[in-house]
Amino acid sequence: MQQSLVLEEKGRLALREIALDQTMTPTDVRIAVHTVGICGSDVHYYTHGKIGPFVVDQPMVLGHEASGTIVEVGDQVTHLKVGDRVCMEPGIPDPTSRAAKLGIYNVDPAVRFWATPPIHGCLTPRVVHPAAYTYVLPDAVSFAQGAMVEPFAIGMQAAARARITPGDIGLVTGAGPIGMMTALAALAGGCAKVYVADLAQPKLDIIGAYPGIETINIRQTPAAEAIARATGGWGADVVFECSGAAPAILGLPGLARPGGTVVLVGMPVDPVPVDIVGLQARELRIETVFRYANVYDRAISLIAAGKVDLNPLISATLPFADSIEAFDRAVEARDTDVKIQIRMPGV
Amino acid sequence: MQQSLVLEEKGRLALREIALDQTMTPTDVRIAVHTVGICGSDVHYYTHGKIGPFVVDQPMVLGHEASGTIVEVGDQVTHLKVGDRVCMEPGIPDPTSRAAKLGIYNVDPAVRFWATPPIHGCLTPRVVHPAAYTYVLPDAVSFAQGAMVEPFAIGMQAAARARITPGDIGLVTGAGPIGMMTALAALAGGCAKVYVADLAQPKLDIIGAYPGIETINIRQTPAAEAIARATGGWGADVVFECSGAAPAILGLPGLARPGGTVVLVGMPVDPVPVDIVGLQARELRIETVFRYANVYDRAISLIAAGKVDLNPLISATLPFADSIEAFDRAVEARDTDVKIQIRMPGV
Amino acid sequence: MQQSLVLEEKGRLALREIALDQTMTPTDVRIAVHTVGICGSDVHYYTHGKIGPFVVDQPMVLGHEASGTIVEVGDQVTHLKVGDRVCMEPGIPDPTSRAAKLGIYNVDPAVRFWATPPIHGCLTPRVVHPAAYTYVLPDAVSFAQGAMVEPFAIGMQAAARARITPGDIGLVTGAGPIGMMTALAALAGGCAKVYVADLAQPKLDIIGAYPGIETINIRQTPAAEAIARATGGWGADVVFECSGAAPAILGLPGLARPGGTVVLVGMPVDPVPVDIVGLQARELRIETVFRYANVYDRAISLIAAGKVDLNPLISATLPFADSIEAFDRAVEARDTDVKIQIRMPGV
Amino acid sequence: MQQSLVLEEKGRLALREIALDQTMTPTDVRIAVHTVGICGSDVHYYTHGKIGPFVVDQPMVLGHEASGTIVEVGDQVTHLKVGDRVCMEPGIPDPTSRAAKLGIYNVDPAVRFWATPPIHGCLTPRVVHPAAYTYVLPDAVSFAQGAMVEPFAIGMQAAARARITPGDIGLVTGAGPIGMMTALAALAGGCAKVYVADLAQPKLDIIGAYPGIETINIRQTPAAEAIARATGGWGADVVFECSGAAPAILGLPGLARPGGTVVLVGMPVDPVPVDIVGLQARELRIETVFRYANVYDRAISLIAAGKVDLNPLISATLPFADSIEAFDRAVEARDTDVKIQIRMPGV
Repeated sequence: MQQSLVLEEKGRLALREIALDQTMTPTDVRIAVHTVGICGSDVHYYTHGKIGPFVVDQPMVLGHEASGTIVEVGDQVTHLKVGDRVCMEPGIPDPTSRAAKLGIYNVDPAVRFWATPPIHGCLTPRVVHPAAYTYVLPDAVSFAQGAMVEPFAIGMQAAARARITPGDIGLVTGAGPIGMMTALAALAGGCAKVYVADLAQPKLDIIGAYPGIETINIRQTPAAEAIARATGGWGADVVFECSGAAPAILGLPGLARPGGTVVLVGMPVDPVPVDIVGLQARELRIETVFRYANVYDRAISLIAAGKVDLNPLISATLPFADSIEAFDRAVEARDTDVKIQIRMPGV
Repeated sequence: MQQSLVLEEKGRLALREIALDQTMTPTDVRIAVHTVGICGSDVHYYTHGKIGPFVVDQPMVLGHEASGTIVEVGDQVTHLKVGDRVCMEPGIPDPTSRAAKLGIYNVDPAVRFWATPPIHGCLTPRVVHPAAYTYVLPDAVSFAQGAMVEPFAIGMQAAARARITPGDIGLVTGAGPIGMMTALAALAGGCAKVYVADLAQPKLDIIGAYPGIETINIRQTPAAEAIARATGGWGADVVFECSGAAPAILGLPGLARPGGTVVLVGMPVDPVPVDIVGLQARELRIETVFRYANVYDRAISLIAAGKVDLNPLISATLPFADSIEAFDRAVEARDTDVKIQIRMPGV
Repeated sequence: MQQSLVLEEKGRLALREIALDQTMTPTDVRIAVHTVGICGSDVHYYTHGKIGPFVVDQPMVLGHEASGTIVEVGDQVTHLKVGDRVCMEPGIPDPTSRAAKLGIYNVDPAVRFWATPPIHGCLTPRVVHPAAYTYVLPDAVSFAQGAMVEPFAIGMQAAARARITPGDIGLVTGAGPIGMMTALAALAGGCAKVYVADLAQPKLDIIGAYPGIETINIRQTPAAEAIARATGGWGADVVFECSGAAPAILGLPGLARPGGTVVLVGMPVDPVPVDIVGLQARELRIETVFRYANVYDRAISLIAAGKVDLNPLISATLPFADSIEAFDRAVEARDTDVKIQIRMPGV
Repeated sequence: MQQSLVLEEKGRLALREIALDQTMTPTDVRIAVHTVGICGSDVHYYTHGKIGPFVVDQPMVLGHEASGTIVEVGDQVTHLKVGDRVCMEPGIPDPTSRAAKLGIYNVDPAVRFWATPPIHGCLTPRVVHPAAYTYVLPDAVSFAQGAMVEPFAIGMQAAARARITPGDIGLVTGAGPIGMMTALAALAGGCAKVYVADLAQPKLDIIGAYPGIETINIRQTPAAEAIARATGGWGADVVFECSGAAPAILGLPGLARPGGTVVLVGMPVDPVPVDIVGLQARELRIETVFRYANVYDRAISLIAAGKVDLNPLISATLPFADSIEAFDRAVEARDTDVKIQIRMPGV
């Protein structure tokens, strides 16, 4: 048995041994976990004990943003070998489900997702995972970056569903970690320029340091006004709503150009008012995003090619022994923190 | 000067002479109007004097759903000739605007649309119209059907934006005239079957008489329950929201299949609550519809080919002399009335 | 052991017992085969002993267009039960392959396809098949129609990849069985009208009997001339090339409208000359079709709803005992034969 | 009258005065031409006197890749003013044509295109042009770059029609000027990496100097082998065929991944053999490109944002007085020349 980071119940974490089923099937691999990022959802389970219908009612290992090294491969695995540096897609669908057959395995109701009750996560030294959802990291991609692929994949999913036309002007509302990931994915994914709007200047400073990103501090200038000025009154081609904030959602029709696109990435807890007639008047298309499917390889390609640099978004890296401290810092949600990572022992 | 149906002000109609600018340019045609349908927007201007920002503050001729016969053609018109039976697209964009160049001339802010203040409509014996927005009716399409092309075009726009895959299961919420048009467009446009949900049984009886349409009386069965039963729990491939009703909009996530599509056709007056997380959980795509562009020829083809029969939706036809009576009946909004048409004199 | 229709080698069929591996996994079902259609590929293996790289070098059971009744279900099968009337998708991919994860399992190189060497087909009383590729037939769909789903699925794939916009004008070049299936799928899938061009009048008579289909005998009128006349010189919105004939392929640019679509369904044996500049001058999109993916449920919905009637295309049904005779008739390729089916004994 | 570069007939150029119709309409602007690039088509008219059906049978001014400064604006022009630095889209459609209404004005048969007989080009000091097809250059875009927008727009059209998904791997076959433009557009438009294949090493050296571009010298390694190695045997997501060479076209099926895309940009003079079954076996989508529509603003945005740097592709700039010399150098088609530009006098 191995020591894991266990959420015992709402508000209580422990680094302790816990029994995990780690039997291999012939299509699985066993991975020595190297780095794990802390996600807002991990923090939310820690502070609230649940997310929507998913309730932590028994001890659960946290973590789903991971990279590592393969230490064992199943008999039928052909594209991976021991020693490969990899990152893992944390959601495992039934590959023959109706949704999975359509290529949208992320919306398969049967998906088992790390650190979503009752499924244990990966803040543990060894995990067993299907080879089909395990991806090799090229030499140019570090373990730290490899553990960033998961959150970046959400931005990639948003960029993919936006169907960006080369040279589009993008706008991201909300400069949280996912907003930043989305801005970078949109920029690498074909936008000429991406505007990021938020009211926290430290966050804007972080993302605004990237060439191609321009920031809008909405305490000073309403996003609609700033984007109108930047586009000669036309509007953004694609608006990525990443704040989940009601006012931002209500104001969406004023941000996009006629015939433009809105991608809803942020998740407001409750139903929020939407100006449907406003959306109609510009005949906008609205896409929604649920995790991701088929984007890990693309995300890795962009990172490996140097088109996306996620290192500046790794704000701190703590050793596994300090995991609880890392979570408590994540709970603080400092404006200057984007991603906090945990490095596993012995790597 | 010719007698027209004039909305003098909110609540007051008159059949009287009114001066209209009917000068021709070389790319225009002059049309003897034959039949004009009454639209909900005509009725709304009559009863409320305005729609959103559009206010009737001077007398305005009503009507925008028209067919007729060409009586004069401009010098540069090549595809039309005197005597052609035609119907007309009532919105005239600036064809070189940024939106029009993109093919989405319906969202060109410069569009001039019949019977939208301050533009006069077509309930008048002669109109001048750009040849480019005037469409020949094949012999198989009557003037009455020709005047149905405009409202049907909204259903066609909804069906086009849905990007129906052949064999899709469609669901229409709201069995008003536009809901019916949308159901027929979706069915002809590739759906295997279209379910229509409403609480008014007489409306359901009218649309349910079409083969391929099934009805759901939501007083008896919630739409979500009915569509789940019909699809083995999977959901509709495409949901056309045509009611504009807040409860229907809030319930959208429960109607569509994972990865499905919602088309927002109905226009709720004010912002309404939307369950964004619910839409995201199935990663739905939401399309909006604003009038139509590039669908008139397709609509006419479907009617001419007999794939769509709009005649059962023409509930009454009154002579032009009885126009005010026709409008007063339209105000009643009888459950058994779908479309009321007015026939011009001398045709 | 059971009697099967075995292709011993090129040109030699036998009805005889042959050992087949019919072990079940927990996700499989066992099906009593009811009806099997004869496909051109079955005939080609019979007459030529190979198709491209696929060579019959050991006895192989033929047949891949089948319907039947479930007689046994694996432990993990939930959506099927003994007694269900079903049809089966004959290609079984690796559901976790890169292509399958994308939803395009038809182009997974690992697909195992019935009656494609060295995989045995289904002209045998019992088959074992993955439940995920087995589809329930509604009461309204007969076993005979159920065995038509497979060839119709190719037409459905063509119609799906065409991305038909409601009211499109379609044109099918080549009135073989697949051309007919494609025409019906395109018509049900949203085309206002579908023209079918061929030089064999008996074939045109069969497909031309469907409302909505118009025929062009290219011995009398070149297809380009006929479609130009029918569309005012504009061209077809979608051209489905189903002949595989070099002259038809060379002439494609003259058939489609500017910005239109060509779907390449027919399979010319060798590379053929294509007028690339002609395709570019109208900026056509060309889609290709390889079998099908994710269309069986849609095909069944259209048949069940009565939007597609495949019965007129079943030219003859012979008992299993006369299978060799059935194949010899299929080899004749009579102009008046579309599909010949074989009914299994004891059903 | 002003001095222009006139193609008198095949093989004979003159710098001389020629009468040009330069009357303004209220929607036109007059532009002082600053820089004009020489296109392969200009050269082809010079050397061959015709391109396909377009024959130079009377003196014609050459040139269609231009930037300049507005010196006069028509009464109805609102978005441009005297002094604006601009570039011009050289093809002018009928904006109310059926194609233009669909947003694909590039395939409007009525398009009048600079330096396509009998329309004069822009190698002349002043031109009159519709304001709707005239685009402001931001300060960050030089006149030289402005005159590169036209050829880059072809690459942009190719990238747009490819519908790149962020992180795609691109492959360009043929490193001529358009191949290079396409590679840069694809890279900026969302590809993680673009491979460019050619047999001329000097060309590969020029384009290979861009980060994100990798080159394949097909004298050393077949493109299929190189791309297979680079993608683990999967193939490129998008192949841009820019060579127009028959062997490249025949080999397309071996370059793209299952379900991938081919964009045909190169224009082979005559029909060439295509391996249709090969394309089908991977179910590839093939897009064609004809000039461009609605990409100028996007192209300018990418250049202004610094995502695309076209300066390294400007091989030489000659004064207008040396135009004939410039053309004669262009005829040489040196491997180290990409684009030769002509600067107008007095600018």
